Amino acid sequence: MEKNRIYTAALIIIGDEILSGRTQDKNIAQIASWLNVQGIRLAEVRVVADVMDNIVEAVNILRERNDYLFTTGGIGPTHDDITVDAIASALGVDVVVHPDARAILERYYETRGGLNEGRLRMARAPEGADLIPNEKTGAPGIKVENIFIMAGVPHITAGMLDALTGTLEGGAQLLSRQIGAWSPESEVAALLRNTEKAHENCQIGSYPFFREGTVGANFVVRSTNQVELDTCTDMLIRGLEELGYPATEGGI
Amino acid sequence: MEKNRIYTAALIIIGDEILSGRTQDKNIAQIASWLNVQGIRLAEVRVVADVMDNIVEAVNILRERNDYLFTTGGIGPTHDDITVDAIASALGVDVVVHPDARAILERYYETRGGLNEGRLRMARAPEGADLIPNEKTGAPGIKVENIFIMAGVPHITAGMLDALTGTLEGGAQLLSRQIGAWSPESEVAALLRNTEKAHENCQIGSYPFFREGTVGANFVVRSTNQVELDTCTDMLIRGLEELGYPATEGGI
Repeated sequence: MEKNRIYTAALIIIGDEILSGRTQDKNIAQIASWLNVQGIRLAEVRVVADVMDNIVEAVNILRERNDYLFTTGGIGPTHDDITVDAIASALGVDVVVHPDARAILERYYETRGGLNEGRLRMARAPEGADLIPNEKTGAPGIKVENIFIMAGVPHITAGMLDALTGTLEGGAQLLSRQIGAWSPESEVAALLRNTEKAHENCQIGSYPFFREGTVGANFVVRSTNQVELDTCTDMLIRGLEELGYPATEGGI
Repeated sequence: MEKNRIYTAALIIIGDEILSGRTQDKNIAQIASWLNVQGIRLAEVRVVADVMDNIVEAVNILRERNDYLFTTGGIGPTHDDITVDAIASALGVDVVVHPDARAILERYYETRGGLNEGRLRMARAPEGADLIPNEKTGAPGIKVENIFIMAGVPHITAGMLDALTGTLEGGAQLLSRQIGAWSPESEVAALLRNTEKAHENCQIGSYPFFREGTVGANFVVRSTNQVELDTCTDMLIRGLEELGYPATEGGI
């Protein structure tokens, strides 16, 4: 691992069901949190329709400018599941039936009506790909070059992430501390700006809320360096107290 | 309104809190559903970090290839709220204090401690912009060219969408019908593909589930044409019945 190198990932969410508003996405937050623990930062996300050209464009831009690219959705048995074809096209390789995926699906469907044309679609992969185990429903995820092709259904994605835990090279984990105060965000803006400016390797996020008839905000300080994280957070806590807003460690 | 023209919008979600996994996004689904009612399709979404260059790049690509561009997040009073600056930069115009926005904020904060430097930031807008009313917390949204700059907090965004309802030119609304069946998705894949192929102006989405120990799927047929929508859905219902899976109108 190179010291101080920041590892980044991008995520492409593939599916008309997200763009139509029918389905509430849960994979952004789930994958972002998992990546943080691996020492990898989610740098950007795109949601694209089930349209070949749109997927290919996003894949080719994002795989080049990030260490890793994840996709979710579009790997089921039906006609609108075109993720494997789009990624093979982006990489300029053929789509093949992966023998291990076929064997997994044969076993899985042995007691569930057998393998048919639709189910066999889920054994297709870009040439040269490896499989990502799926303990829940048989049909595996796919790893090819720096691309990780995952399911769209969040609990199946979760199982695939479990299988990948600890296998991706990452950098220093992004650490964070959260504090909260019953302060209007707009009265502490200068404090936040000055505190962040005084700590080069820290970012401060401000998340206002309105509860019990009163406004307040939670502040999240993030850094890869524990000492700087603590110095920065402590300066923020002192500053809030000086302005008359005692801070609650952990947030409100 | 041009006949049969499809109106599209893109959405940029701006904010480290979504990319870090701290906050679960709700604006994609909310804005997508609202756009559908306006006769506008959400064509793509990007989530970008609070970094000037990243926002500018996304704004310039997406505003050109869509009728409308929406952004959420980054318009509060703190140092990490840079959306207005980024969009002004993308458009090549100056940032100015909008006199109406300033007046609104002066009134709003009259009984809340008065206008300070942080709060005045929320009156800043790209030159030439109009305001989008915000009944909830004073600070308005901003409309400039075909770009709609909205709040990040979902219930504030909702109020701004209400204010925009009926004001954007759209095309025919995308209609949909949903049916459900206790059919494994992989056993009806050929039926779905053939039914869609037989109806040029319809798309069929398939959304599998696993409940009460059994698998099933909901199928959503979408079209701008009511007659074709009904013909296509009816063919799908008949096909499912022939395969031994009676369909439930409205979904399961």
